[in-house]
Amino acid sequence: MLRLEDFVEARARLQGVISKTELIHSPIFSEETGNEIFIKPENLQLTGSFKIRGAYNKMAKLSQEEKEKGVIASSAGNHAQGVALAGKMLGIQTLIVMPKHTPLIKVEASRSYGAKLVLYGEDYDQAYKKALSLKEKGYNFVHPFDDQDVIEGQGTIALEVLEELADADIIMVPLGGGGLISGIAAAAKLKNPQIKIIGVEAEGAASASYSLARKRLEELPRVHTIADGAAVKRIGEIPFAYIQKYVDEIVTVSDYELMEEFLILVEKHKIIAENAAILSIAGLKKIKEKNKKIVSILSGGNIDVLTISSMINKGLVSRERILKFSLGLPDKPGQLVNISQILAAQNANVIKLDHNQFKNLNRFHHVELQVTVETNGEEHISSIIEALYKAGYQIKRLN
Amino acid sequence: MLRLEDFVEARARLQGVISKTELIHSPIFSEETGNEIFIKPENLQLTGSFKIRGAYNKMAKLSQEEKEKGVIASSAGNHAQGVALAGKMLGIQTLIVMPKHTPLIKVEASRSYGAKLVLYGEDYDQAYKKALSLKEKGYNFVHPFDDQDVIEGQGTIALEVLEELADADIIMVPLGGGGLISGIAAAAKLKNPQIKIIGVEAEGAASASYSLARKRLEELPRVHTIADGAAVKRIGEIPFAYIQKYVDEIVTVSDYELMEEFLILVEKHKIIAENAAILSIAGLKKIKEKNKKIVSILSGGNIDVLTISSMINKGLVSRERILKFSLGLPDKPGQLVNISQILAAQNANVIKLDHNQFKNLNRFHHVELQVTVETNGEEHISSIIEALYKAGYQIKRLN
Repeated sequence: MLRLEDFVEARARLQGVISKTELIHSPIFSEETGNEIFIKPENLQLTGSFKIRGAYNKMAKLSQEEKEKGVIASSAGNHAQGVALAGKMLGIQTLIVMPKHTPLIKVEASRSYGAKLVLYGEDYDQAYKKALSLKEKGYNFVHPFDDQDVIEGQGTIALEVLEELADADIIMVPLGGGGLISGIAAAAKLKNPQIKIIGVEAEGAASASYSLARKRLEELPRVHTIADGAAVKRIGEIPFAYIQKYVDEIVTVSDYELMEEFLILVEKHKIIAENAAILSIAGLKKIKEKNKKIVSILSGGNIDVLTISSMINKGLVSRERILKFSLGLPDKPGQLVNISQILAAQNANVIKLDHNQFKNLNRFHHVELQVTVETNGEEHISSIIEALYKAGYQIKRLN
Repeated sequence: MLRLEDFVEARARLQGVISKTELIHSPIFSEETGNEIFIKPENLQLTGSFKIRGAYNKMAKLSQEEKEKGVIASSAGNHAQGVALAGKMLGIQTLIVMPKHTPLIKVEASRSYGAKLVLYGEDYDQAYKKALSLKEKGYNFVHPFDDQDVIEGQGTIALEVLEELADADIIMVPLGGGGLISGIAAAAKLKNPQIKIIGVEAEGAASASYSLARKRLEELPRVHTIADGAAVKRIGEIPFAYIQKYVDEIVTVSDYELMEEFLILVEKHKIIAENAAILSIAGLKKIKEKNKKIVSILSGGNIDVLTISSMINKGLVSRERILKFSLGLPDKPGQLVNISQILAAQNANVIKLDHNQFKNLNRFHHVELQVTVETNGEEHISSIIEALYKAGYQIKRLN
C-alpha cells in the first residue's frame, strides 16, 4: 500500500509536466443538490484525460535500462494517449496495441505523439493478450489501472484538490478499472482521514460493486453502458484492495442519467466531458448529504463529435424538447400548408418532415406525414397536440 | 474618449462580482498558425458571455434615484442575461424587451435572474423601438454597445489579459456592434501603445468594414451569418469613433470557417463557444504575423444544444468524415446483406439507411437505397466507393 510521501513524490515528478487544472465552482449543480459542488476538470488535462498522470509517473520511475527497452500498452482510448505522450516527453519508445477496428481518429491521436501502433484483435481483450505476449520480448508493460505506480500518479489529483479546497468533505470519483479511485482515495484519506470517498459506477458495468458484494474479485458476465471509458468487466486486483480499504461508498447511475448531465454540462458550463467522466456528476444526485463541499472528478473529455451530436439528440428527446409524430393526410393539395400554419402559430420549429406519398395508411388513400419539431417542453407539446386535434388531425405520437 | 483610469476604476467595480477567466494556452492553434496563441475564455464567464461586464458597470454607476427607477434593455441574447443578472446583484428592477418568437430557453435564462420580460415585435429592431418607447416612462435604457459605460466595462478584459500576459503582441476581438472591441482596444492601447488590435467580422455582417471603407457610419442593406451574436447591420456611433482611433486592422471570416473552428474547439479544447465568439479564432488564419503572442477573445458560449448538433453534422460533412450516397438495388432479397458486408469490411460505420421500396429508379424496378456512413476522411471514402464499384454497384454520391 502506498504512503502519503509516495504521492507527494509523484506530484513533484509531474510538476511542470502536466497542466494545472483548477477547480470550477458549479452554481447549477450546487443548487440542484443542496451542496457546494466543485468540478475538477481533467478533461482540460493534456491528452484530454487524467491518464497521463499515471502513465508518466510509471514511466519516469523506470530504470535507465528499462527505459531503453521501451514500453508496451494496450488501449483504444485515453491510456494509449497518456502512454504515447509520456513516451515522447521522456524519450521512451512506446508500442501500443489497439483493437483492429479502433476509429482512425483515436489511432491518429496516439500516433501524433510518436507511438508505434499495432492493430490487433476484435476487441480490447484480444489486444491486451497480444500486448502481454509482446512483453516477453523485453518491453515493459504499462497496465492502465492494475499497477502501483500508475495508481500513485492518479493519486496526485487528490493532493491538488485538497490544496485548493482543504475543507472538502466528499470526493466523487468515476469507477472503471479502479486505478483512478484507488489513487485518489488513498492520497486523500492519508492527508485527511475524515474525508469521504464515493465511487460512481455505470449501472451496466458495476464491476466493483459486483466483486465487493461477493467479497472476492469476480468478473461480470457482460457490460453494457455508454460510459465506454469505464466499461470494465473486472476491476484490477490492486485496486480491489485499495477500494476495500479506502472507499466509503459506491453508487451506480444509468445511461439515461449520464445523458442528462452531459447536456447540462454543455449548456451551463460550456464544457465537453466524456461519458465515463460524467459518472461523478450524475452520482451527485444519489447521495443524501446536504451542505457539504463536494468535488466531482471530471476525468476526461475525449468523446467523438459524432457521439456528442447523438447524445444531444437523444437528450433532447428525453427532455421533451423534441416531439415526433405522424399523421395521415388526405392526398390532396394544400394539406401541408395547413399543418405548417398550425405549427407556425404554435411556434414549433420544424426540424424534419417526411412526406411519404407511397405509404398508404388506409383505404381512403391517406398520405403519411412524419413530423419532428423542436419544442420548449411538456406544456408546449400538449398545446401543439391540442391545436392539431382541434383542426381535425389525428396524430400518432412517435416519442 | 475613455482614459486608462476609467478602465481601472471599472475593473475595481467588477472585482469580486464577475468570474476570473484565465488565459488558456492553445497548442493546436499555436501549431497551426506559427504563433503562440492564448484564449481568453469569456464563455466561462457568468451568464456565459462578457456582456455582464458592461451591463454591471453601467448599472452600478447609475445614481441612487436612477437605480430606483429601474432599467430597460432590448435583446434576445447575451445582453439580456447580463442586464438581468446585474439587476439582481445590484437590486435594480430590470425590464427586458425580447422579440415575440425568442426561444423559451433564452427567455427563461433572463427570467431566472428576476428580470421582467416583455415579448414584442417580429425582430430585434421592433423590440428595440418598443424598449426606447418605454424608456419615456423613466426607465434607464442600457444599450448593448453604443454606450460609454458599457464600453468601459468591456475594456476590463484587456486589463486582465495584459496582467496575465504583459508581452502580448496582438489581441483578436470579435466585432459585432463594436462595444467589445472599443473597450478592449482603448484599454489595451492606453496601457501599451505597441499592442496591435485586430477586429474580426463575419463575412455576411461586415458592418464595421462597410462603414470604415466609406469613412462614415452606414447601414448594411442586409446581414446573413451563423454568428448571430454579431449579426449587426450598423455598428454604434461611439464604437465607430473608437474603432477609427484604436483598431489596427479588420479581417473577415466565412460561416464555413467558423464551423471548422467550432469543431476544433470542441475536439481539442473540450469547450463550447458560440459562433460569434469563434470569429476571433477563425481570424487567426487571416493574419500574416509569425512568432507573436496572440490572445483571441472567446466572447461567449451561449449556443443552443440543437445548434451544436447541427454544427457538428455540417462540420463533419465538410470534413469528409461523413459520406452520403444512393444506389439502386435489384428488388430481390439479400441485396441489403451484400451492401452491409461490403461496408463492414471497409470499417465504415452506417449512421443512416433509407430503403425506399416505392421509389423506382428505372424500368428494371430497382429499389433506391440511401446510405450515410461515418468515415475517417477522403482516403477512406475513396476506398469505400472503390469497393462498391468492384462489387458491381453504381453509386451516386450525395455530398
